[in-house]
Amino acid sequence: MATVKLLSDAEIEKIPVAKAVFDDIRAVRKSDFVNNFWRGLANDPALLKRTWEQLKAVMMTDSAIDPLTKEMIYIAVSTANGCTYCIHSHTAAAKAKGMTDAQHMELVSIVGLAGQTNHLVTSMQIPVDPQFEVKG
Amino acid sequence: MATVKLLSDAEIEKIPVAKAVFDDIRAVRKSDFVNNFWRGLANDPALLKRTWEQLKAVMMTDSAIDPLTKEMIYIAVSTANGCTYCIHSHTAAAKAKGMTDAQHMELVSIVGLAGQTNHLVTSMQIPVDPQFEVKG
Amino acid sequence: MATVKLLSDAEIEKIPVAKAVFDDIRAVRKSDFVNNFWRGLANDPALLKRTWEQLKAVMMTDSAIDPLTKEMIYIAVSTANGCTYCIHSHTAAAKAKGMTDAQHMELVSIVGLAGQTNHLVTSMQIPVDPQFEVKG
Amino acid sequence: MATVKLLSDAEIEKIPVAKAVFDDIRAVRKSDFVNNFWRGLANDPALLKRTWEQLKAVMMTDSAIDPLTKEMIYIAVSTANGCTYCIHSHTAAAKAKGMTDAQHMELVSIVGLAGQTNHLVTSMQIPVDPQFEVKG
Amino acid sequence: MATVKLLSDAEIEKIPVAKAVFDDIRAVRKSDFVNNFWRGLANDPALLKRTWEQLKAVMMTDSAIDPLTKEMIYIAVSTANGCTYCIHSHTAAAKAKGMTDAQHMELVSIVGLAGQTNHLVTSMQIPVDPQFEVKG
Amino acid sequence: MATVKLLSDAEIEKIPVAKAVFDDIRAVRKSDFVNNFWRGLANDPALLKRTWEQLKAVMMTDSAIDPLTKEMIYIAVSTANGCTYCIHSHTAAAKAKGMTDAQHMELVSIVGLAGQTNHLVTSMQIPVDPQFEVKG
Repeated sequence: MATVKLLSDAEIEKIPVAKAVFDDIRAVRKSDFVNNFWRGLANDPALLKRTWEQLKAVMMTDSAIDPLTKEMIYIAVSTANGCTYCIHSHTAAAKAKGMTDAQHMELVSIVGLAGQTNHLVTSMQIPVDPQFEVKG
Repeated sequence: MATVKLLSDAEIEKIPVAKAVFDDIRAVRKSDFVNNFWRGLANDPALLKRTWEQLKAVMMTDSAIDPLTKEMIYIAVSTANGCTYCIHSHTAAAKAKGMTDAQHMELVSIVGLAGQTNHLVTSMQIPVDPQFEVKG
Repeated sequence: MATVKLLSDAEIEKIPVAKAVFDDIRAVRKSDFVNNFWRGLANDPALLKRTWEQLKAVMMTDSAIDPLTKEMIYIAVSTANGCTYCIHSHTAAAKAKGMTDAQHMELVSIVGLAGQTNHLVTSMQIPVDPQFEVKG
Repeated sequence: MATVKLLSDAEIEKIPVAKAVFDDIRAVRKSDFVNNFWRGLANDPALLKRTWEQLKAVMMTDSAIDPLTKEMIYIAVSTANGCTYCIHSHTAAAKAKGMTDAQHMELVSIVGLAGQTNHLVTSMQIPVDPQFEVKG
Repeated sequence: MATVKLLSDAEIEKIPVAKAVFDDIRAVRKSDFVNNFWRGLANDPALLKRTWEQLKAVMMTDSAIDPLTKEMIYIAVSTANGCTYCIHSHTAAAKAKGMTDAQHMELVSIVGLAGQTNHLVTSMQIPVDPQFEVKG
Repeated sequence: MATVKLLSDAEIEKIPVAKAVFDDIRAVRKSDFVNNFWRGLANDPALLKRTWEQLKAVMMTDSAIDPLTKEMIYIAVSTANGCTYCIHSHTAAAKAKGMTDAQHMELVSIVGLAGQTNHLVTSMQIPVDPQFEVKG
């Protein structure tokens, strides 16, 4: 299905940069499971490393937005972009971080409503009210 | 700029269904300002009413997701859909609900990273890991 | 604003292939006005010609879908793709072909509802019912 | 495959709001078949009800646009948004409302051409001609 | 899976316009294999012919951009549009034209980075610098 | 217009991480001009730094794809995503790297054709031919 090879653990062993990232993924997540996304990226070890470093910096560092909210924002973007894989992986991540069924369905509602008003606004080409402009 | 007329308060006065919605918008928001989106929708009073009722139900009712998080999810979808108006109006709403500059920039980071991994996944056509499938 | 030059009538005069297309646009539309889209495409006369020939074949030939419905479908796609120019030009075309204000607002409603259900379906990753599969 | 549970008829029986909507869907459509979309939405009965009420108001009420045209517009938006499920379900609905194979392929042509000109316009960043601006 | 019939060679035989296009596809590509895209388009022989003629003109004619670069640009657009089929068929085409694994992963990186900066820019609504405006 | 502040050089001076990135941008590009994108990102110096480091790694390092092709791929993605700013900035970059008018219009043609076939394929829901599947 993929247009690139999904590298097995045996193949990763032979690529030091990729091996180090996989070790870190396993250590940080406290799980032996490494999902297909990383196995595809491993075809370009530098890209694999950059992507994982970013993910840690943005999604796994204590910050002004809590971890569950971050995952819900991720699902929202992935839905609007139609990324099936990303919706599945980040919904799983959100559930692992405590997203309840009620929160999940509410997320679905918000994403749906935003989708609707985005289309309504664009079809009518509504101009931005001056009141919404940021003050520099 | 709009492809429909943006109805003035004087025009709204003559359309009872629209007038009732505008009164409710003003009452709920405790502000006389009604933004252009509603002035466009008012060309179809039933659509105006349905949209406002939904927005109240989804965005303004106490629920499992807090009001600021809802706005951030809304911005995320609107960004992926490229809806300039919606990004402006919901960023203003998020700020009114207390979004700090740090939270805003973090939202920007998450949306950017999701955009990147969505594209990486799609270009490689990564198949969904069986581990991510929901148990029915 | 454009990233290419928008060719003036004087410049078009010097490019025989482009001149012939512009003459045909004016003849078919019975109007001297040629909009910016064609002035941009004219930088590649072969692309200009192919695009105009297609538009005539698809949008201006008697067929199984009436001309106004065609324009409404065009607006629907252009909205989902966020093409401001296309929404403006095809809304003008639809109005010229008799789209009433009531039809316009109804189109807006349908596009909005489709935007919403598209997002709802995608966020929940609803599988296609076997009943919807076409019989080959 | 879905990220939410698709509720069975037995589960729907226990949720009065969802049960009432399912009864109405069956009555309006004169068919016992209720497709997966509604079974996913039923996880949030209020969302299920709002979505069904809107669909009836927009798609199943006599109005200025005929029922088949509505379905074709729905397919157009769903295609541009890449919603596989929605394309399947609304293509089935359009066929049930009499869409011929000729009309279907013509819809495909229009959607394709709009996709092309949307991309041409956006890549050249063509500015909107003043002639297309609506008069307020 | 398709919402249209995918015509078999036996069915194509009976449609002269489609038959001529299929013969040309086989002659130009020096291969008997005709992929599903053309079998779907064949339901509208004029659309089939126009699409094939364009593909030859744009993708298979000696020009200012080399054939492999053209395929990489095609993959880039198809990824951003989430077209699974197109990503698969044009990745295969790019490989047939000599795309190495290193080039493929680099294409993936660029597409990913563009996806990220597109989302960053849109979420912040960055205005175009006057320095980027084309000089007419 | 932006929803964040665009930081001036005076403001950048006070943020050491941002100052170091701006110095590097100026040194690498051999120009004093720093465009708005970086002035928005500077509100989150860590995001600014990560984004610039990636851009250097992907776009400015000798690699398997030449610098002009990289810019054309970037424009292709940005067009499909409808990112006005990105189309302008990367079209300017491509021209600075030698993109001729003929190459530019050819890029426009390819992006347009890909947009069309993406929509054609999606509307017909063409299944991927087994011949296009990668061999693992």
